[in-house]
Amino acid sequence: MLVIDGLGGVPHSDSGRTELETADTPNMDALARKSICGFSVPVLPGITPGSAPGHLSLFGYDPLSYLIGRGVLEAVGIDMEVCHGDVAARGNFCTVDKHGLITDRRAGRIDSQQAADLCRLLDGQTFEGVEFVVRPVREHRLVVLMRSSISLSDQVKDTDPQQTGVAPLSAVADCPQAEKTSVAINRFIEKASGVLADKTPANMILLRGFSSIPSIPSMQSIYQLNPVAIAAYPMYRGLARLVGMEVLPTGLSLGEEITTLENAFGGHDFFFLHVKGADSAGEDADFERKVSVIEEVDRFIPRILALKPDVLVIAGDHSTPAVIGGHSWHPVPLLLHSSYCRPDNTLSFSETSCLSGGLGTIPATSIMPLAMANAQKLGKYGA
Amino acid sequence: MLVIDGLGGVPHSDSGRTELETADTPNMDALARKSICGFSVPVLPGITPGSAPGHLSLFGYDPLSYLIGRGVLEAVGIDMEVCHGDVAARGNFCTVDKHGLITDRRAGRIDSQQAADLCRLLDGQTFEGVEFVVRPVREHRLVVLMRSSISLSDQVKDTDPQQTGVAPLSAVADCPQAEKTSVAINRFIEKASGVLADKTPANMILLRGFSSIPSIPSMQSIYQLNPVAIAAYPMYRGLARLVGMEVLPTGLSLGEEITTLENAFGGHDFFFLHVKGADSAGEDADFERKVSVIEEVDRFIPRILALKPDVLVIAGDHSTPAVIGGHSWHPVPLLLHSSYCRPDNTLSFSETSCLSGGLGTIPATSIMPLAMANAQKLGKYGA
Repeated sequence: MLVIDGLGGVPHSDSGRTELETADTPNMDALARKSICGFSVPVLPGITPGSAPGHLSLFGYDPLSYLIGRGVLEAVGIDMEVCHGDVAARGNFCTVDKHGLITDRRAGRIDSQQAADLCRLLDGQTFEGVEFVVRPVREHRLVVLMRSSISLSDQVKDTDPQQTGVAPLSAVADCPQAEKTSVAINRFIEKASGVLADKTPANMILLRGFSSIPSIPSMQSIYQLNPVAIAAYPMYRGLARLVGMEVLPTGLSLGEEITTLENAFGGHDFFFLHVKGADSAGEDADFERKVSVIEEVDRFIPRILALKPDVLVIAGDHSTPAVIGGHSWHPVPLLLHSSYCRPDNTLSFSETSCLSGGLGTIPATSIMPLAMANAQKLGKYGA
Repeated sequence: MLVIDGLGGVPHSDSGRTELETADTPNMDALARKSICGFSVPVLPGITPGSAPGHLSLFGYDPLSYLIGRGVLEAVGIDMEVCHGDVAARGNFCTVDKHGLITDRRAGRIDSQQAADLCRLLDGQTFEGVEFVVRPVREHRLVVLMRSSISLSDQVKDTDPQQTGVAPLSAVADCPQAEKTSVAINRFIEKASGVLADKTPANMILLRGFSSIPSIPSMQSIYQLNPVAIAAYPMYRGLARLVGMEVLPTGLSLGEEITTLENAFGGHDFFFLHVKGADSAGEDADFERKVSVIEEVDRFIPRILALKPDVLVIAGDHSTPAVIGGHSWHPVPLLLHSSYCRPDNTLSFSETSCLSGGLGTIPATSIMPLAMANAQKLGKYGA
C-alpha cells in the first residue's frame, strides 16, 4: 500500500488539470491500464479528514469509531512512546499580561531551541502521583504526557480558550473519573506558571486535546498479517504503531524508503509505504512542487513492481489540493493492481480517468478488504 | 428475476475479455440498450459470498443479518424438508485407525451407493427423545437432521476437527440450552461408531455446521407478492422455500425451466428463475463452457420478453470467474428493464459496459426495492 499523502487535487485555473493530471507519470499510467481504479472517500462525503482518520480509514478502521486525540497524535508525531493509560496533551507556550490575561497564544512563536530549554524546566515533575513528561515539538509547540499508577482519564476540558484577552482556563473534569487527573494537571500548570514567570514572552502554557490511546484491534488480529510501515515522518510511524505495525528504520528520502522496502520485502506480507511530500506541497499551495513529488513517486514505481507484490494499492489518505492549500474533502484517486483485479478501461491514473474506474467511489475502509480479497487471503462468507 | 449463478467474470489473459464479454449475446445486448445497468455487490466489497448469502441478498434480505447454516443448506440441497426447530448438520463418512485417530476425513471418497447403504443403517434412530434422520448427499457426504418434541438448539460445536491424526471431537454445547441436543448427538455418534466399526474405510462420521432455520420474514409479508421459484437444483429450491416462495416442479434443462415459467406466468407476480450452469462452469475453471451457458441463456431471452413482464431483472448471486475457479468478491453485472427504468447509454450487457451503467454499483439488497418501484408496487415514503 503506497500512500501518497494528500494525493487528490483540484484543477489549476490556468490548465484545467489537477496536480496528478499535470504530472508526467508514464509508469502509473501504464499500471492503471492493467489495474482497477476509482476513488476512496476517507470519512464521509464533504468531510475533510486530518491525518489520523485519513490513515486509519486506509488501514480499514472506521474513522468515526476510532478516534485519535490531538494530544496522542502530537506525541506519536515526535516519536514519543505512548502507552495504554497515558494521557497526552498538545501544549502551546503563550504570553499572559500582568493580570494573567492571554496576549499571544503562541508566545511570539519563540524559536525551537528556546522552547526546548523551557520544556526541560517543566519536565519530569510529579503531582498527585502523576508524572508529567514534557517535550518540545517545534517553535511554541510542546507535548505534555501524563503517566501514573493511578487510573487517569482523558475526559478533561482544554485549558486553551483559543482566544486572547481572557485568562487560561482551569483543567475541568468532564466526568467524575477525571477528577484526579484534572487536579494533577492544574497543579502542574500552577507550578509551570511560577517557573515561567520571568520567561516572557513564554510565561505561561495552554493545553488542549487531552487524549489516551483508543482500544484498537491490531492489524495482525484483524487480517492475520505481519505488517510493517516505512515512513519518514514520525506521525505516520506513530499511527502505524498504534494499529500494530512494525516500524522499519528508514531515511528521509523516497529513494531510501524504497530501498528499505526492497530489503524487507521477503520478511513481511503487508507494507505501508508513506510519501509525505505531496501533502506538504499541497499545504504550501505549491502546485508545481506537488507535481514534482508525484513525478518522483512515478519514477520509483518500476522498483516496486519488480518486487512482484500480489497486490499493489496506490492511494492517498485525503486530498490536499494546492489551489486550496490544505486538506480537503475530495475523494482520492485509487488504484488496485493484482492478477485478479478485473481491469477497467482506465487509460491513466488521474482524477478524470478514475471517474470511470471499475471500483467506483468507495469508502476508504473498503480498500483493505478488497486488497485482502485480491491477495486471496479471505475465506468465503456463508455456506 | 433471472439469476445467472456466478454470472460475473474476470478477463481471460489471452483476450482481455470476461466470459460475458466473450459470449455472443445479441438478445441481452439489445435489451441492455433499453434498460438500466450496473453492478450489484452481494455482501460487502472484497467479500466472497456463498450461495445462501448471495441469494438472500438478491431477494432483499441483508445477508449479514440472516444466516443460513451449513447443515440447513445441505439438507435443503437434497430436497429434505427442514422445519422450524429442527437442527441439521453436514456430515462426512471418515476413516479412523485402531486408536480412534482420523486417517482420512473423507473415507477415501467412497461411492455414493455405498454411502447411501450406510446411511440407511444409521437412519431413524431416537436418542434422548431426539429422532435422527440420516440421508446421503454424494460420495462421503451426508446430512443428519434432528427432530424432537423437546426444544433443540443449534449452538453445538463441530465434531469434525478438520484435520487428520486426531480423534473426532465430542459435540460440545455452546450454551446451556444446547446441553440436551449435544448429549443426544454424542449418543447418536457413539452408536454410529459401533454400527460402522467393520465398514472400513467408512468406519466413523464427522458432523459440522449444526444449524436451524433462521426466523426470516416471508417475501409475501415484505413485498405483498405471490412469488414462485423455478430452479433445477435443490439447494436453490430450498433457499426459495425458506423465504416463502412456492417452488414449481420443473426439469433440469433451461428450456424446461422457461416452459415452466411460460405455463405459470399468469398465476403469479414474482418469478425467480435460476440458471446453475454458469457457476458450475466457473467453478470448474472452464471459461468456454461458461461462455456457452451464457449464450444459451441469451437464446431464451426472447421467450421471456414475449411474456411481457412489467420488470425484468438479470442478475447473479455472485461472480464465479473461470480464471479463479471459484466464487469471488467481484461486483456482478446487473440489468433492469421496465417501461420506467430510465435507460442509460449501455450498448451491451457486459462488465465493461455496466461500468458506465445508470444503476452504478449498488448493494444487491437494493435490487428488490428497485424492481418493486419499477413495477409501481411501492407507495410514497413520508408525507
